[in-house]
This record gives sequence, structure tokens and C-alpha cells, in this order.
Amino acid sequence: MRLNERQSAEIEELRQAQPTATRRPVAPALEEILFQALPVLDHGFVRVVDYMGDDAAVVQAARVSYGKGTRKVSDDRGLIRYLMRHRHTSPFEMCEIKLHVKLPIFIARQWIRHRTAAVNEYSARYSVLDDELYLPEPEGVAAQAVNNRQGRGGALDPDAAEAVRQAIRDSGEAAFRCYHELLNADAEGQPLDPERSGVARELARVVLPLSTYTQWYWKTDLHNLLHFVALRLDPHAQAEIRAYAQVIAEIVQRWVPITFEAFTDYRLNAMELSGPALAILRRMLGGEKVTVEDSGLSPREWRELMDALAV
Amino acid sequence: MRLNERQSAEIEELRQAQPTATRRPVAPALEEILFQALPVLDHGFVRVVDYMGDDAAVVQAARVSYGKGTRKVSDDRGLIRYLMRHRHTSPFEMCEIKLHVKLPIFIARQWIRHRTAAVNEYSARYSVLDDELYLPEPEGVAAQAVNNRQGRGGALDPDAAEAVRQAIRDSGEAAFRCYHELLNADAEGQPLDPERSGVARELARVVLPLSTYTQWYWKTDLHNLLHFVALRLDPHAQAEIRAYAQVIAEIVQRWVPITFEAFTDYRLNAMELSGPALAILRRMLGGEKVTVEDSGLSPREWRELMDALAV
Amino acid sequence: MRLNERQSAEIEELRQAQPTATRRPVAPALEEILFQALPVLDHGFVRVVDYMGDDAAVVQAARVSYGKGTRKVSDDRGLIRYLMRHRHTSPFEMCEIKLHVKLPIFIARQWIRHRTAAVNEYSARYSVLDDELYLPEPEGVAAQAVNNRQGRGGALDPDAAEAVRQAIRDSGEAAFRCYHELLNADAEGQPLDPERSGVARELARVVLPLSTYTQWYWKTDLHNLLHFVALRLDPHAQAEIRAYAQVIAEIVQRWVPITFEAFTDYRLNAMELSGPALAILRRMLGGEKVTVEDSGLSPREWRELMDALAV
Amino acid sequence: MRLNERQSAEIEELRQAQPTATRRPVAPALEEILFQALPVLDHGFVRVVDYMGDDAAVVQAARVSYGKGTRKVSDDRGLIRYLMRHRHTSPFEMCEIKLHVKLPIFIARQWIRHRTAAVNEYSARYSVLDDELYLPEPEGVAAQAVNNRQGRGGALDPDAAEAVRQAIRDSGEAAFRCYHELLNADAEGQPLDPERSGVARELARVVLPLSTYTQWYWKTDLHNLLHFVALRLDPHAQAEIRAYAQVIAEIVQRWVPITFEAFTDYRLNAMELSGPALAILRRMLGGEKVTVEDSGLSPREWRELMDALAV
Repeated sequence: MRLNERQSAEIEELRQAQPTATRRPVAPALEEILFQALPVLDHGFVRVVDYMGDDAAVVQAARVSYGKGTRKVSDDRGLIRYLMRHRHTSPFEMCEIKLHVKLPIFIARQWIRHRTAAVNEYSARYSVLDDELYLPEPEGVAAQAVNNRQGRGGALDPDAAEAVRQAIRDSGEAAFRCYHELLNADAEGQPLDPERSGVARELARVVLPLSTYTQWYWKTDLHNLLHFVALRLDPHAQAEIRAYAQVIAEIVQRWVPITFEAFTDYRLNAMELSGPALAILRRMLGGEKVTVEDSGLSPREWRELMDALAV
Repeated sequence: MRLNERQSAEIEELRQAQPTATRRPVAPALEEILFQALPVLDHGFVRVVDYMGDDAAVVQAARVSYGKGTRKVSDDRGLIRYLMRHRHTSPFEMCEIKLHVKLPIFIARQWIRHRTAAVNEYSARYSVLDDELYLPEPEGVAAQAVNNRQGRGGALDPDAAEAVRQAIRDSGEAAFRCYHELLNADAEGQPLDPERSGVARELARVVLPLSTYTQWYWKTDLHNLLHFVALRLDPHAQAEIRAYAQVIAEIVQRWVPITFEAFTDYRLNAMELSGPALAILRRMLGGEKVTVEDSGLSPREWRELMDALAV
Repeated sequence: MRLNERQSAEIEELRQAQPTATRRPVAPALEEILFQALPVLDHGFVRVVDYMGDDAAVVQAARVSYGKGTRKVSDDRGLIRYLMRHRHTSPFEMCEIKLHVKLPIFIARQWIRHRTAAVNEYSARYSVLDDELYLPEPEGVAAQAVNNRQGRGGALDPDAAEAVRQAIRDSGEAAFRCYHELLNADAEGQPLDPERSGVARELARVVLPLSTYTQWYWKTDLHNLLHFVALRLDPHAQAEIRAYAQVIAEIVQRWVPITFEAFTDYRLNAMELSGPALAILRRMLGGEKVTVEDSGLSPREWRELMDALAV
Repeated sequence: MRLNERQSAEIEELRQAQPTATRRPVAPALEEILFQALPVLDHGFVRVVDYMGDDAAVVQAARVSYGKGTRKVSDDRGLIRYLMRHRHTSPFEMCEIKLHVKLPIFIARQWIRHRTAAVNEYSARYSVLDDELYLPEPEGVAAQAVNNRQGRGGALDPDAAEAVRQAIRDSGEAAFRCYHELLNADAEGQPLDPERSGVARELARVVLPLSTYTQWYWKTDLHNLLHFVALRLDPHAQAEIRAYAQVIAEIVQRWVPITFEAFTDYRLNAMELSGPALAILRRMLGGEKVTVEDSGLSPREWRELMDALAV
């Protein structure tokens, strides 16, 4: 269950509250979805809890302005694209966003590697975790990739995939039963056996699987958020974290559309050509027919280059 | 000149603009002074350009809430004080503020040592700096301290202080004349000698003194801001940076008054007692008369302890 | 199994190798245990892989020295204690250490919250994890604390403790059986059923419990390491991470004994007195009998203060 | 004067001292120049004070090894190149270096913007600064660039350049005379006028120019050091900081030659092609004649692309 009734009601109350007046920059398209739980995976979500700044704030900081600091829209767009192209990162650090994220623990462990962020996680030492586990969709159940030691290969056939899902579900449910036995408490917190005392929460939780959902408040700046999106939208990232990065990319697009466009052109769709690759390219543009053998590149780099150039 | 006419007009325009509606938390006392240049030293200022969060946002993050996350005011105050007392820092990282600061370069060099912040500084490679120098007030002109190798001792007598001010002023004006000679440009940017070309701005500026004013956008979170205030309000900090810390402390008080109260009690007015000092204190509370000789402390530590205990 | 044969042999080979000559500072007591797996918990360890600097390096950096920068041992000790007492942190950042740590995932999740560090973790996307689970010692199996929502209370009676251990063991073994079923591979990597393909490693691992051991290379500076030790040796920290902090404290003592002594006096055994607590102390030292009622402190803070003063 | 006699003697003493035995990795080519002041600009230098790790340490961390973790040299080189190409940064964070740098203040202000580093700077509050100013070489005295608002254009003619140098020298010397007047102390610290007391050092220094030399201990990891080198070797960086980056690049090459080679190929000599630029390239490789008008790029981006492709 993504949200229980009480949680939905609390969010709804905030969304229905009378807006307040502010002189700070406001991003209207982001205000629209403020506080909403945008669904990710089977039980997860991303909610924008607060934000600071907008596209104009990037421009304003780059110009160290007294007032708005912005000029014509085309000038501002040009400056933002210039900053992105030349990797001037500090003006993009001047916008900030705070998200509430619900996510499986194995994804949380990848996410937390992004160190330039503030985090408050729901504490399983202090509170009892809900019985919620991530279960992949049938089409996400894939074999180990053969040519990529850390990725997934083709999807399993439907019956095999369903058997995998059943095994993950059974294993998780058994773990949660054990968790409640250890706590000596049911899902509502009532003692299972009034005669005995439960084990400390910080200890009982060690039996829970990595697919258990946790949640946190996570706050970072726009520059580091874009870095997160670029790394986690990459095809080499695990599918489950890509799903979160996809939703965050849509949030960024609402928040700072001009920055997002520049990011798409100069990061997402960009490619870094190494010195040796550039040399080959110059030869090709000069009309020479270059082969992998006389390229000086490893076969793998050659293939990556040819794929990128679609030749 | 703290602000020129154009700068004042730009700020005023922002302050007079129609407020916008937002569902985000608003700190009313901070909105009041938003964008205003709060004066510091002779030409400097601190302006709040934007902020995110308030006291309730600290509570909300600590509770990883779906809605407001706050309860009774007394509960929230209690939680904030608990977090501050036990140095739970992450909830205080969940509020963010962006300041525009005008400050002398020798202070900027101390300030920048706080690394967990985003900075966009006015570029003296790209632009010509205004002829503005910091000149200490007569009562701030002090002799070298004798018992503190890095501090100031007593103020000089008025005549000597005025002579010092005159020397600083003359030296600075000579430097700025040289700067303009090198640039071959007057304060309005007109060539002094149309026959020759000026030197690159990035090179000409090397003659400017450390008292020259610069300015930057500086953004940090509440936790790191409080750390800045605690270190820079300290009596060992240089008077000129203390003046900035004082103004920032007042900003924090407007922004998050409950947090500021807790910070005052548990940081500003607190004292750390070492293990050996605690042992002495226990002896004293047990009625023993302890002297520096049988304390085991160095004379310096003993004096600091006695001062703090006012005994 | 803490180390398998191959791992022990690799470590031994490094330890037996001929030392190399260097002009860099060397910490002899740390060299003695270099590369050794210092045991923690049932299967974990901490190994010092490399380090940079020693006590003298702290002094040298504080003095921005051309040569050794050290003087008499008593002077150096005095300076280190001064730096620690006045929280001058940057000289302690000038020493660095790199550890190889094997630890259960639920501890890794607490550890990683220390952001100022470099981490390379063993990848469960890329490799198959060993069947190793943390199982608490019988005396570590404790009930939930009643007066501390996030801690442990008294130990369970031996029979109950053994039952808990059995439940954790059974649950973990079942999870690992499921893991191998999903991978379609036994612990040696041989297919269980040659007819079917296994699931991708990144997916199969989601059934593993939080008690599973992982390992990483972790590198940080002395200042941040001491902060880690101070927080994680605290009685409020979970017992399992305290066990790691204890071993690291012993490593620090070997590495920088003077710094460790100062840290013990001014951090580990120190106590921060709030402004209100200081005021009470002054009244008590003046001979007044102060009670919780007229102290102005909350009952909880009063109790903490009285405990610390042992009155 | 780059080094005075006492400083040279202190360095020499360290260099002549008997090496100590260590089991840690040693980088022989770096040991050769350890402690030496490598000259930069007229009075500056970079000295390697300590380091941790080598090329093999990158490999060892990436593999989370028990022993050396390295295999055949060609395998290790392949892995390092793979890590660099795919921007896997954490293994490069596992090596650390500590430098002692003497540099003009205007360069120190650019340098300090790299936040992921530890710094201990010589304190002008605590000590009196030496009378040392940066004076550009005649060929470095250039006009303001016309097409690049933050750079230098062509060099001035020799006479004009010499006049500029004289103006900078005179201005600096006047500032230092004022500094000593304020301190009431000559360069040896003797009072100029025994009848009056000098001004506090922290105040007197405000008259010093930005060309004054300062010095610091600066410690960072290999990943952040490479980032520094990439940004500061860039043709858009100010010539004076490029001089430091050049020396540091040579240090890196001695320290971790395989990493440096990969860095050269995949960073220094690499070029990032935006999505739109890639599309154009594909058209050109397909035989189409593309012009700036139908490229969709701005004239500036088009020119940058054509320059990089040398067509």
C-alpha cells in the first residue's frame, strides 16, 4: 500500500490549505504537484516537500544580482546553456529541493552514495517497519546478463518469472513473520504472546530482506540532483533506481524547464569523445576509411564509438 | 557607498512586487526583511535572497512526516531542543538560506573556509571592481594583543587611531589609482589615455588591497549556518567577521526562533567541560577546596575553567 | 568464516613482503598491525590498509612548516591538546587512513551516514555474496528498552535468547536458500538445475536479510574518524556499531597516541554544559541548594546533569 | 626569495634523513622529489609533503581486495582506463596527497574554491608576512582580451610591459612600507619607533595587495586533484594558476603514471559532444555538407565544434 488513509489525509490537508503569500521565486508547475506522492515501483513514491529557486535564480546567482538579475528570456536561456555547456556548476547549486521518498532498501543503499545531500531516514531502531516488500513486475524478472557482469539480460519466460516472484514473495513474508515473532507484536503492535517480552526493534529488524521499503527526507541542490539523474538514468544503472530517476527528471522539468533542456542537450544526450577517438574522427571526416585494427582503440571502445556515431 | 541608486532601485522593485501564492512553508518575520541590505561595517551588507523551511520543517524532517508533522507548539519546541542538545544535526540541514553579502576580501578569505556552502562571487577577472575599501572605525583601531598572538589588545588613543586610519585610507587610494592606471580606465570605465591599451582586468586587480570590498551569493543549510555563527561570534574571531555573524544571528532569530533559542542555550552559552575538568568539579561540589596546583590542569585551562564557573 | 584460506594467504603474503624504504612519516605501532584482520562481531573485521601522517604531521600542518615542524615532545603535545580543546579541526584533517571493513548490512547503513569519506563496496550486482549472517551473542539478545524508544533494555533469559538466535539463524538460512534458488547456483557457483537460467544477481540479492555481511574499503581523515568514534562509541549507539568503533579507537591509539589522549580528555570524557546548566552550577558552587523545581531545567535534563556531576 | 636559508636547511635535513621501512605502497618516482620546492612563478612553489597509495591502490580498492589486488600490468591498466572512461570516481578517491604551496593571494582565492580538500594556511593574524609580491614576467603582461571578457589578449610591447611591471612593483612596495609603519616593525620585527605601539597584525595586513604571497598545506584525494588539474590547465584559466596546475600534473605523472595516462586520454584531450553536435556529426559522416545555418547550433557552438574537429 503506497499510502494508508491517515497518510493520504495528511497530504490532502496540506494540499487544500490556503496558500500563503511570499516574495520568493515560485515555480508554478512545481507548486501544482507539491506534496503529491508520485508513484514509483509497486509501493514507492517521490514527493516534493519544498524547493528554493527557479531558472531565474540560476541566472541571478551567476550575475551576483541586486534585483531579479534576469533580462530577456532569450538572454537568460543563453546564459543557462552557456553555464551548462562549460560545466559552471556553482550557479546550479543555488537552487535546492527537498523530497520525501519511499524506496526499497537495496535502492536506498545505492542512492545514499550521493554524499552531497541531507538525509533523515525513518528509523527501524525507533519504530516498527510496515510489512511492505518490493516485488518486481513479471517483465522485470530477467536473467543475469552474459556480456555485462553487473546487469540483467533477457526477461525470463512468464512462468519462470512468476515462479521467481512467488519465491521472492514467500521469502519476504516468512521474514516478516519472523520479525513479528521477534518483536512479539502483530502489525498493529499488539503482543502476540502477552507472557513474553519482545526483542529490541534494532535487533529484530536484522531479519528483514533488502526488498523492504524504507523512506526518507532527502534534500540536495540542483547541480547534485542533475548529477544524480544523469548517473541513475544511465542504461547501466539498475532498473529500479532508473524508475526513481525518471520521476525526478520529470520533477526537474517542471521546476526549471530551461535548465532541464540544457541538461538534456549537454549531458543526457551528450557523449564524451576521448583524445584518441577525436583523432579517429578527424581522420574519418578527412575521408579516410578507418578500421578497428588501425584505430588504436580497444575493440570495446571502437564498438562504443561506432554505436554512438551510428556509422 | 553601500548601494548605488541603480542597486537600491532594483532591490526596491523586488520588494514592492506583488507577492505570489505558495503552499510551501513561509517565515513571516523573514519575509519582512527579504532582499533588504542589512548594513555591516562601513560599506558591507547581508541580504536574504531566498530561504527554504522554518522551525516546523525541522520537526517535519525529524519525524519523516507525510503532512505537517508538527503537533503542539510545546512538543515541537521540546523536540527541537532535544535535537540540538544531543547534536542531531541532520534535521537542521533540512532548512536552507541564500544570502547576498558584500564584504572586504580579508573577511571573505576567512568566510570561505566554511566549505559546506555554495558560492558565486563577483568576478574581478570579468568586471572592474568599485573603489571601495574597508576603513575601521576609530574605536576599532587596536594594538596587537600581548597575551593573544592572534588578537587585538586595547584601542589606540584617538590621535594615533586617526593616523592609522589615514594611512590605511592613503594606501588604499594609491592602490586604486594604480589599478585605474593599469586598466587605463577611470571609475566610469572611460579610457584615461586613448592612445594606449589597458592591462587585462585579471592582472590589474593584483595591486588592490585586502580591504577591497567584494560580494557574493552564499547559500548554506541551517546546521552549517549555526556552526558559522557559533565560530564567528566567538570572542577569538576577528571583530570584522563578528559583525557579520551578529547580523546573521539576527536573521536566524527571525527565521527559526525556536531553533535559535535552543542554539543559544546549548551552543552559544554552553561550555564544554573536559574529563579532567569534570573530575575537579565533582571534587568541588563534594566540598573539597581545589587549587591549580593539585588540579592537574595547566594554568591556562584552570583559569579558563574558573572564569567559566565565575568562582 | 572471517577469512577463507585464500584471503588469509593474500594478507599473509603482504605482511611477509620485504618492507620498502620511504621518507614519509611512519607510525611504527600501526605498521605492526598493518593488513591484519582485527576481529569484530562473529564474522566481521577491520583491517588497516594504508595511512598517511602521524602525531607530528598534525603539528607540522598547524605550523605550516618547511621541515619537520616539531619541537620538544612536550611542546608538540601541548599544541595538539590546544587544537583539540579549541576545536581547531583542520590540522587533524591532515592525517588519513584507509580501512577494509567487513560488516553486516544494517551496520553499513548506519556507517555510510558519515559522508566525508571515500567508499568502495563489494558489489552484489557484480558478484555473489557469501552465505554469512550476523548472529548476536546470547548476551546481546535484549528486550526493547522501555525508557529509550530506540535502544535495548535488559538481556533476555538464556533460553529465550537462544530461541531468538535460532529464529534469526533459521530465517537467514531460508533467505540464503532462496537466494541460491533464484541464482540457480550453489555456494561454489555451480548450477543447481542446468536446464534453467538464474535470475540476475542484482535482483536475486533483494531476498537477503539485513544481517548479511558486506565489505568495503573506507577512507577518511583523522578528524572525521574521531567524530565517527565519538558518535559510535556513545552508549546510545547500537551495540554492533560500538564494537567497530571500539576497534577503531584502538587503531587510532596506535597511530596517533598523543592525539588520542587529547581526544579522550576533551571529547570522549567531556561533557557539554548548556547555558542554563552552567548557571545552576554556579549557584551550587556558591553554596546554594538547587532542586529540579527551581532549576528551570526539564526533569530529563536535570537528571542528565546530576548524573554527570555524580551528585 | 623562494626559500630562505633556514627553510632550505630544514627541507634538506628531511631529505637527507635515513629512510624508514614501511609495508605501505611506495611510489618511487614521487619519493625522489619528496619535500623539494618545485618552483612556480617568481617566488612560489609546490612541495609534496606526503602521499598515500599508487596506481595499484586504485585497482585494489576497485576490487575490494584482501591482498595486493593487482594482476598482470596490462589487466590493471585496462581496469584503470575503464574506470576513468566510465567516470567511476570512488577508486581514485582512495589515493591522497598533501602539498605545501606558496602562492599569491589572488590565486589562493581561486584555488580555495575547490572545497573537497583540507587546508592549513599561514596566518597573517598570528604572524607577520614576508615582503614578497608576485610580479608577472614581461611576456605575461597582456591587454584585456576583446572577445573574451575574462581573459587576456595579446602581450603589451616591451616598454609598456616594463612600465606596468614597475607600477605593480612600486604600488606593492608602498603597501608593504605602510604595513610595516602600521605594525611599527621592520622586516626583522624590530620596532621602527620604540615610543609607540603597533597596530594588531590582523588589522595591519588589510593594506597588503592581492599579489602578496601566502602559503598553505593542502591535502586532497587523487580524484579531486585530477578535477583541479583539468579545470586549471584549461586555456580559460588564469595563466598564473595554470602554472601551478602544470607542476601538479607533473607530480601526478610521477605518482600514478597509468592513471595519468588515462586522465590525459579521457579528460585532458577529450571533448564532450552535445546531443545536437552529435547529430550534426552523424550527418557529416553520412556525407552531408552541413553549414552553420542549417546546423541548429549557435555560431559560437558551431565554431567550437569545427575547431575541435579541425575541419
